[in-house]
Amino acid sequence: MKSIYYTAATLDGFLADDDHSLDWLFAFGEVGQGGIDDFLDSLGAIAMGASTYEWLLRHEGYALPDAAKPWPYTQPVWVFTHRTLPEVPGADVRFVRGDVRPVHAAMADAADGQNVWIVGGGDLAGQFYDAGLLDEIVVTIAPATLGRGKPLLPRRIESPALRLVSADVLDGVFAQLTYAIGR
Amino acid sequence: MKSIYYTAATLDGFLADDDHSLDWLFAFGEVGQGGIDDFLDSLGAIAMGASTYEWLLRHEGYALPDAAKPWPYTQPVWVFTHRTLPEVPGADVRFVRGDVRPVHAAMADAADGQNVWIVGGGDLAGQFYDAGLLDEIVVTIAPATLGRGKPLLPRRIESPALRLVSADVLDGVFAQLTYAIGR
Repeated sequence: MKSIYYTAATLDGFLADDDHSLDWLFAFGEVGQGGIDDFLDSLGAIAMGASTYEWLLRHEGYALPDAAKPWPYTQPVWVFTHRTLPEVPGADVRFVRGDVRPVHAAMADAADGQNVWIVGGGDLAGQFYDAGLLDEIVVTIAPATLGRGKPLLPRRIESPALRLVSADVLDGVFAQLTYAIGR
Repeated sequence: MKSIYYTAATLDGFLADDDHSLDWLFAFGEVGQGGIDDFLDSLGAIAMGASTYEWLLRHEGYALPDAAKPWPYTQPVWVFTHRTLPEVPGADVRFVRGDVRPVHAAMADAADGQNVWIVGGGDLAGQFYDAGLLDEIVVTIAPATLGRGKPLLPRRIESPALRLVSADVLDGVFAQLTYAIGR
């Protein structure tokens, strides 16, 4: 089992702009989506922050009674939030708050040997990193910059914590960098 | 002739920390320096901002009478500054300010077909980009994050301005991404 922070980001290290918009990413359409299905198949549990969850609801309309698209995850999803958020009919979503360690333990139990995905945002991934619970970071870097926005990983992590495993080109457009975290 | 912004950055898109320190980069020693000599040989002119120039003086002591190391560039160097900065004995350094376009024209003349290097900082590279005078961006991404600091490229540049040319691994440690700028 590995716990993986897998995300797209701009070349200058942003996940989204100040309005949480991913329009810069959708400009690329379906390009670079090639590896995502295999990645999803490897997962036993998923964690995300409130803003990421709300973005899914707002962008995809999952919580609406007439949602056009089904909730995309068969795995249980833990959502970190201090607020009451809408539920998605039929989705296994568990609202939690606070220390990531007991949540990670519950996720590992549920994952039963499969991988754990930390979707984001950056600070939630940072909390898993701080607790020594992150094994891998996979960043799909889009050929774009935002100049400002939501940070990829608001932490100071210096050598030799991150070890570059691979640098690949996806569909001739994205660079996908994979890092192992060792300490 | 190409005008190239060639720089090292952290995974989260910073050139240096808030104190202009590159200590996070020097932690890697000589690793990843393999390609730099070939790159320097391809150059006919160099531009940098005042902070970058001051960093070179402070870190390497070039302006001191008893400087241990010779000025590293045989090419003419244009330094953008609004202040009076120390000169380096024997170095061809030209202090300029304002619009990058006439300076780029002078650099292109001097380069005589060889490449032009925009060393940084990020905003100076952005000014060359804004003026349509940047042909390529080469970022050597260190396996480190800073969380905050001097930004790689404080601009919003969305698809399809940047085109990924290559993603390479240097010495098993750095990822080097090369982008062509087309418009």
